[in-house]
Amino acid sequence: SLQNIVRKTHAADLSIVFRELSPTGMNTLFHMIKDIDKKVVLLSELEENTFLDFVKVIAIDDLVQVFEQMPADDAAELLGWLDEGMADEILQKMKKEDSLEVEHLMSYGEDTAGSIMMPDFIALKEDTCAKDVIAALQNEFLDVEMPFYVYVIDEYGRLVGVSSLRQLVVVQPDRPLKEFMAKDIVSVKTYTDSEDVAKLVARYDYLAVPVVDNDNRLVGIVTVDDVIDIISEEATGDILKMAGVGEDYIETQTVLRGTRIRLPWLFTSFLGGIGAFFIIGGFQESLAKFTYLAAFIPVIMGMGGNIGTQSSTIVVRGLATGKINTRDLWSVVFKELTIGLILGIVYGVFIGIVAQVRFHTELLSLELAFAVGLAVLVSMTVAALVGSLVPMLFEKANIDPAVATGPFVTTSVDIVSVYCYFMIATLLLGI
Amino acid sequence: SLQNIVRKTHAADLSIVFRELSPTGMNTLFHMIKDIDKKVVLLSELEENTFLDFVKVIAIDDLVQVFEQMPADDAAELLGWLDEGMADEILQKMKKEDSLEVEHLMSYGEDTAGSIMMPDFIALKEDTCAKDVIAALQNEFLDVEMPFYVYVIDEYGRLVGVSSLRQLVVVQPDRPLKEFMAKDIVSVKTYTDSEDVAKLVARYDYLAVPVVDNDNRLVGIVTVDDVIDIISEEATGDILKMAGVGEDYIETQTVLRGTRIRLPWLFTSFLGGIGAFFIIGGFQESLAKFTYLAAFIPVIMGMGGNIGTQSSTIVVRGLATGKINTRDLWSVVFKELTIGLILGIVYGVFIGIVAQVRFHTELLSLELAFAVGLAVLVSMTVAALVGSLVPMLFEKANIDPAVATGPFVTTSVDIVSVYCYFMIATLLLGI
Ligand SMILES: [Mg+2]
Ligand SMILES: [Mg+2]
Ligand SMILES: [Mg+2]
Ligand SMILES: [Mg+2]
Ligand SMILES: [Mg+2]
Ligand SMILES: [Mg+2]
Ligand SMILES: [Mg+2]
Ligand SMILES: [Mg+2]
Ligand SMILES: [Mg+2]
Ligand SMILES: [Mg+2]
Ligand SMILES: [Mg+2]
Ligand SMILES: [Mg+2]
Ligand SMILES: [Mg+2]
Repeated sequence: SLQNIVRKTHAADLSIVFRELSPTGMNTLFHMIKDIDKKVVLLSELEENTFLDFVKVIAIDDLVQVFEQMPADDAAELLGWLDEGMADEILQKMKKEDSLEVEHLMSYGEDTAGSIMMPDFIALKEDTCAKDVIAALQNEFLDVEMPFYVYVIDEYGRLVGVSSLRQLVVVQPDRPLKEFMAKDIVSVKTYTDSEDVAKLVARYDYLAVPVVDNDNRLVGIVTVDDVIDIISEEATGDILKMAGVGEDYIETQTVLRGTRIRLPWLFTSFLGGIGAFFIIGGFQESLAKFTYLAAFIPVIMGMGGNIGTQSSTIVVRGLATGKINTRDLWSVVFKELTIGLILGIVYGVFIGIVAQVRFHTELLSLELAFAVGLAVLVSMTVAALVGSLVPMLFEKANIDPAVATGPFVTTSVDIVSVYCYFMIATLLLGI
Repeated sequence: SLQNIVRKTHAADLSIVFRELSPTGMNTLFHMIKDIDKKVVLLSELEENTFLDFVKVIAIDDLVQVFEQMPADDAAELLGWLDEGMADEILQKMKKEDSLEVEHLMSYGEDTAGSIMMPDFIALKEDTCAKDVIAALQNEFLDVEMPFYVYVIDEYGRLVGVSSLRQLVVVQPDRPLKEFMAKDIVSVKTYTDSEDVAKLVARYDYLAVPVVDNDNRLVGIVTVDDVIDIISEEATGDILKMAGVGEDYIETQTVLRGTRIRLPWLFTSFLGGIGAFFIIGGFQESLAKFTYLAAFIPVIMGMGGNIGTQSSTIVVRGLATGKINTRDLWSVVFKELTIGLILGIVYGVFIGIVAQVRFHTELLSLELAFAVGLAVLVSMTVAALVGSLVPMLFEKANIDPAVATGPFVTTSVDIVSVYCYFMIATLLLGI
């Protein structure tokens, strides 16, 4: 029966089915689930839009019941999506001890280590011996979510060492933590950017990273499963921003929501197009004399646009993965500029040859070929320069370079290309 | 001293320093490292190009020494980058037991679970009781890399259950595995695509996933740290492919290498530009009568190009993250088409108004405004259609949709836009 299928399906898979259901369907499915832990995972894996649709149909007491069992980091994330009134109502109905933890996480800034950490972890004094640690795991810390590491704290709760579950099983039962714990601990602050936390975990292959406050007191851990989500979401966000969609675009969006999100992003390219329109309008005289000038507009815009996209993508992604650093601003920009120049010469010559072959019987055909080739060269060089410089400067100014790069670079390159082309042609053809 | 700094620096950080060094510098730094495990991590974290530069200067025996200590999955990856002769030489010099494991992994297809798995894992019979499992951890399995899970196998080596280190510490010492192991195990085959393995780990929040052969015999595990690399590299690859750079572009590339990789990708847009050139050439007569037609080329190409990029990016990324499925081909394409149509109407009207305002004193200005608006509508609708349909079809045909999407969609949209525009204008203006 359906009930049986639901029972056998992993909660993470149910969350995918959820996305496809109507709110009533969600409600029915939710009440088919008997296991509260399954409800917890299901809800914590939902995307923002699906969750917001679901809360419209579900009774608040059912929600409260799930939130009381949910790891505090996931609960804080979901409640952060609700409007304040509803979040407060849920928090008030939750058991005090659970809601306090969640409220604490929600008090940290968005996308900081503090807001994504788990406040439950295993922390013991350095005199505890291995067998007592194991005993503590069996009693006190029975419901810690991901217990890979045992953290060692001093009397003030300050982080002084770390040991792994692995090590504990291997050492002599009566050895105290201080004798075998690792003392050079990598930790992050509550206000560390969550993407920096993710980079750290990825680089050192950790399963979790401890979060400390300004006094080095251990206050939580960020676990690898959440790091995977951060890395994947950061990549998706960058891709969507560069494509001029905005990072919040979600595939399940309705046509109207989708249209509303994409409309303003296209406005930049609309303005750019109108700009180009007036620029070309200013060269009506040149065009009237040499109508075939118009035929080269697409190739000049296309070559500039595409190399600009190459440069900006390489820089934006390099900055995101840590392979490019703003310290290297000038060497990166200079390299892109050089590549733009070389490729500009190559394709400039190609296009000059096409122009010469096509128009060799006409007057001033050599001048035309030269003008077109030079325009391609200028357009590609400028595009590589703008495409690399703009995201580097944005990163330096702490503005997300992915946002800068999409429509902004494309549009400005289009305008510069068109303008340079007509200027060069008008001068060289002596119009 | 420098020696001291090297000693205190994490190997993963040294690998980043390595990237910036000359081959001689790499050699010097490498020999400053005393700890062999540190050398292992350093090498296993290198990128392909850096590693290939390094092997040119390092003595083969030094390499062999490191490879013997390296986890087999990392060794297989690095050796796969070398030419066959050198890889064989290293394998032959390695201890037989180590090289066999590595060769075994290398025999699996690229980007499959088999090629990225660790062949060392903890596997025991179901009658083993908890305290014997712990004893085995302390002896037999002392050098298993990431021992989060204890796998349970039958007499033929077939996977029948799994328990966590966590559980082991918590249960009564004399209870056998079969009584507390989990029996519904998620496993992958040796030939499962590594990106699918990564999706599984991300979805279910696993720390490792077991890999079985066709007879369900456990042959390895894929661990979460490698999954993070797969997810990050897949995202980077998709971003670079969509930008028309090719997924192998690396930031440390020299100017010449960079130019060589990017040159052919620009050739598509060169061909597209030449195509547009001949199309517009075919409309010389129209252009001669109405020179201002040329001024609308950029805005029509830009609007089509940008909405096409939006659509294809949303689809490519949705497919990569599993949020869009090829099952939904027609509903996705239909939604994109509808959004394209709506946005096409909005911006078609905008641009029609601009045309009318600018040219209202001229003959046929209404027809011109209508033609330009209609061209924008057609261009944006076609772009949304092509941008969503092409990646969906490529995915269905098992061709990487990210490759399809970059220059291919952009270029075809450019050509279609220009052609439709001049056709519509010529017809409506009765030229
Ligand atoms: Mg709690
Ligand atoms: Mg790593
Ligand atoms: Mg690694
Ligand atoms: Mg979590
Ligand atoms: Mg999460
Ligand atoms: Mg970012
Ligand atoms: Mg071995
Ligand atoms: Mg997950
Ligand atoms: Mg999760
Ligand atoms: Mg590994
Ligand atoms: Mg790796
Ligand atoms: Mg891919
Ligand atoms: Mg373009």
